[in-house]
Amino acid sequence: MTRIVQKYGGTSVGDIDRIKRVAARVREGHDAGNEIVVVVSARSGVTNELIGRALAINPVPEDREMDMLLAVGEQETIALMAMALHALGVPAVSRTGSQAGIVTDPAHTRARIVKIDTQRIEDSLKKGEVVIVAGFQGTDGQENITTFGRGGSDLTAVALAAALKADLCQIFTDVEGVYTADPRVVADARKISEISYDEMLELASLGSKVMQARSVEFAKKFGVMFEVRSSFNQKPGTIVKKEVKSMEDVVVRGVAVDKDQAKVMVSQVVDKPGSAARIFQALGDAGVSVDMIVQNVGRNGVANLTFTVPRNDSLRAERTVKDLLDDDGGGEVEIFDSIAKLSVVGIGMRSHSGVAAILFSALANAGVNIQLISTSEIKISVVIDLDAAEIAARTVHSAFNLAGA
Amino acid sequence: MTRIVQKYGGTSVGDIDRIKRVAARVREGHDAGNEIVVVVSARSGVTNELIGRALAINPVPEDREMDMLLAVGEQETIALMAMALHALGVPAVSRTGSQAGIVTDPAHTRARIVKIDTQRIEDSLKKGEVVIVAGFQGTDGQENITTFGRGGSDLTAVALAAALKADLCQIFTDVEGVYTADPRVVADARKISEISYDEMLELASLGSKVMQARSVEFAKKFGVMFEVRSSFNQKPGTIVKKEVKSMEDVVVRGVAVDKDQAKVMVSQVVDKPGSAARIFQALGDAGVSVDMIVQNVGRNGVANLTFTVPRNDSLRAERTVKDLLDDDGGGEVEIFDSIAKLSVVGIGMRSHSGVAAILFSALANAGVNIQLISTSEIKISVVIDLDAAEIAARTVHSAFNLAGA
Repeated sequence: MTRIVQKYGGTSVGDIDRIKRVAARVREGHDAGNEIVVVVSARSGVTNELIGRALAINPVPEDREMDMLLAVGEQETIALMAMALHALGVPAVSRTGSQAGIVTDPAHTRARIVKIDTQRIEDSLKKGEVVIVAGFQGTDGQENITTFGRGGSDLTAVALAAALKADLCQIFTDVEGVYTADPRVVADARKISEISYDEMLELASLGSKVMQARSVEFAKKFGVMFEVRSSFNQKPGTIVKKEVKSMEDVVVRGVAVDKDQAKVMVSQVVDKPGSAARIFQALGDAGVSVDMIVQNVGRNGVANLTFTVPRNDSLRAERTVKDLLDDDGGGEVEIFDSIAKLSVVGIGMRSHSGVAAILFSALANAGVNIQLISTSEIKISVVIDLDAAEIAARTVHSAFNLAGA
Repeated sequence: MTRIVQKYGGTSVGDIDRIKRVAARVREGHDAGNEIVVVVSARSGVTNELIGRALAINPVPEDREMDMLLAVGEQETIALMAMALHALGVPAVSRTGSQAGIVTDPAHTRARIVKIDTQRIEDSLKKGEVVIVAGFQGTDGQENITTFGRGGSDLTAVALAAALKADLCQIFTDVEGVYTADPRVVADARKISEISYDEMLELASLGSKVMQARSVEFAKKFGVMFEVRSSFNQKPGTIVKKEVKSMEDVVVRGVAVDKDQAKVMVSQVVDKPGSAARIFQALGDAGVSVDMIVQNVGRNGVANLTFTVPRNDSLRAERTVKDLLDDDGGGEVEIFDSIAKLSVVGIGMRSHSGVAAILFSALANAGVNIQLISTSEIKISVVIDLDAAEIAARTVHSAFNLAGA
């Protein structure tokens, strides 16, 4: 008997007909003799409606009450999904996060899972029931409802798969899997059949947006193999799993482009010990997360420091750094909004040299200027002009022959 | 310090502005130094939307899943109400039925309250917090969500008032209180300032529709005094409380008209022992609740049996009785849909005679024909023609001088 955890996102359960279609798919799996746990999100749009009502009442709602409010979205879906399965003659029972035994820390709106008591789910599976669990939510163990933040339903699925020792964890979504590049930009982008956690992490955090990094990290930590696939067709998706030797044969797994960053240049800073540290301390205190960092110290004893931040935070970053420099001996801050970050990712890079050379010369040949470079063990990222992002993605995709079988 | 339980129905919390208005009213009570527990319903319309979605997915949804689904409506309101109070600077915390410690039997969609563990509410009140409780719902003690059925939020309020030994229980609704008659029909109907549980029960179950009988019965059983009043103005409403001697000075408290019944006449039934019992047994098995019953046995040994049922059930009642008579020696069944039941109610009737005489002669003078009569200790009901209902209500209201101060 195969034990499967399936997660369906908000688009997949967006209306009555889609809920029925998901139920039909779940029935197939159940009738084939599998044990099935289904994790669902709120219908698409519902969470935003709830947030809209909350903000109309209180512009700064308390986190505990936001969790109380938002948990409603998933609770509606689990009940409707159970009814849809019953209508097809499939025994099924819905469970809120709390009822599913998901215990978290008390950090409302961004809770972390502490443990999962699977007894009730096991009992239901033993009776042949499909168990439908509300994604994105748990309880703090003091009966308060907690939620996990964005991408929380994926986390529920992966965590349940780990706790239940599931044979398979399937993340059904509105894309068919993870691609070598964004298919809307690169026409011959190819669906990747297998990818390692680390590659997926770099691709996800670099703007592929298939899943939040947190769920992938959780899967890696607990060794949960999972598949990302479409809920709208029957095609196999992308398997995300532990690194195996053969994966290293592929030097570059994919190309990711992140268009939501801005570049911050700090110049004319007097180069004394700790000045960079003070800047990043201040940004951290202001809640700005910094990504790429490059520093050069010139001969005249003044340093130039460049880094990237989420574009939404660029003004806050500018203000924070300006305030600091004013107190700290001077310097200039400049923001560049029109940038993109392009990255190539692959665990094969570790054992293959020359990746950087191929990347840089491909970009040069295409006339794309590189503003910043940063590298990690399995990734090389460059900052380029926003307008060049698409041509760069196509050029690099082709330079690494990613469309080839 | 006064401890107050306030209940606001779906119309009173129907949209963002109304939620804010209720919050402002709650703040007044809180700022005046009272301990306040607020019970709220789902926003008006929400429950019906949820039911609509459920039935579109499954025409016969399982009761447990309906409870899971419907509980969502109140949970949304408690979170929004807490946010509205926070926006006014009032400390407040929301609690689902389960979190409020409301434990029920496991009868989904019509659960009965078994006990209330008030510890968490007491803790919050001690801290000066307003506690906002989701009406209509509890838990079966096995973590399943249960709901109470129609009028369930009133029940939550009354039960909490009992468990918390509240000084005051206020049911805020869209009417200003209980009237001597329906003000839309009887122009000089007067708001009743005090009424006994039994009178309220008879008026409620006879179609005054201010509250479901169940909540009033619960209040009577646990001696909870409560006030029915409008959430849209500051006028005092109607206090419902234990019978006191002075209440008997009023012979008739009010006139109620129920237009939702039908009369069933069963004639030519061979009068043998148990024939009536078999009819009512069959109706009970068919889920038809019977109200007034009158039987006459004629000289020729055949019985005529007349009773009233909810109009929605009249066809089911006809079919049930016909099937039985066919098996049981014959008889005729006839349905009369165009009837109304008019009742006068008052605990003062017990000690005053002549009420029936005044009622019957008033109706006779107005040319209203009486089809059936039934009496209890504090009530006289008559069945009349539906078309005569309004003139009858006005006539009787005036005959008992109910408009007088």
